Amino acid sequence: MRARELAKKYPTVGVESDAWKAAQTMARDALPGLIVLAEDGSPYAVLPGSQVLRFVVPQYVQDDLALARVYNEEAAEELCRRLTGKTVHELLPSKNDQEELPVVDGDATAMEVAAVMARMHSPIVAVVEDGKLLGAITASKLLGFLMPDTGAAS
Amino acid sequence: MRARELAKKYPTVGVESDAWKAAQTMARDALPGLIVLAEDGSPYAVLPGSQVLRFVVPQYVQDDLALARVYNEEAAEELCRRLTGKTVHELLPSKNDQEELPVVDGDATAMEVAAVMARMHSPIVAVVEDGKLLGAITASKLLGFLMPDTGAAS
Repeated sequence: MRARELAKKYPTVGVESDAWKAAQTMARDALPGLIVLAEDGSPYAVLPGSQVLRFVVPQYVQDDLALARVYNEEAAEELCRRLTGKTVHELLPSKNDQEELPVVDGDATAMEVAAVMARMHSPIVAVVEDGKLLGAITASKLLGFLMPDTGAAS
Repeated sequence: MRARELAKKYPTVGVESDAWKAAQTMARDALPGLIVLAEDGSPYAVLPGSQVLRFVVPQYVQDDLALARVYNEEAAEELCRRLTGKTVHELLPSKNDQEELPVVDGDATAMEVAAVMARMHSPIVAVVEDGKLLGAITASKLLGFLMPDTGAAS
């Protein structure tokens, strides 16, 4: 079994997409994150939900959690509105802070996918062929493939 | 809205539970991770799928991904069998490597939950009352609450 056969379609956004819409998509479809594509369609980054919240919650509130209690619901909504008019690119951590992207070739074996996930602590690996995204593989999907009894037992 | 109202039931395992069964549950229910409870029922850690793979994939393969290609499917299955007879506790990173646990009180406001998620880069926060787990809040659920138009629009 090769990565291309394990890959499933996974929601993506362009790096220049609207940040508010990206956050809305995550919320509506209960996604833990989105794959961000460069303009040429190749994977550029992963945008996790927590990263959207890092953009929304001011740094000094993250540093001193006691301050968070001061914000009522209207004030919290107001902070979310900072997403409007921004691009997904502006939400991403600076390239230096970004980890190596968890990407494998369509030809990668299950063990290669597992090794990339393990090494990068990533819940998801993007599968790329000819510079284009084929889809993604989640850790749970891979475990299900590697652990032969999972489907049948329990 | 307080954390206790946003919290949803989330799959848990005991710290002394069987590691193989925990991995099976993740695979079967397509979960990105499980909340690990101490013997007294309080949250102890989060076990992400990638951590299970870190246990399964030998360190030298993680360090040199080219080695992964050597493992065929039977060899990969064999590595998974190392989970049998182990406890969830043995899968967890050493306490020093574990990040601060993303836990809030039932009384926490949405902004406090957002601040904890943002600060800890966590896709999920456990909600605890009187030392017991009430449930968990995901980043996407919280975004849906904080972004008022999400439900109606698009």
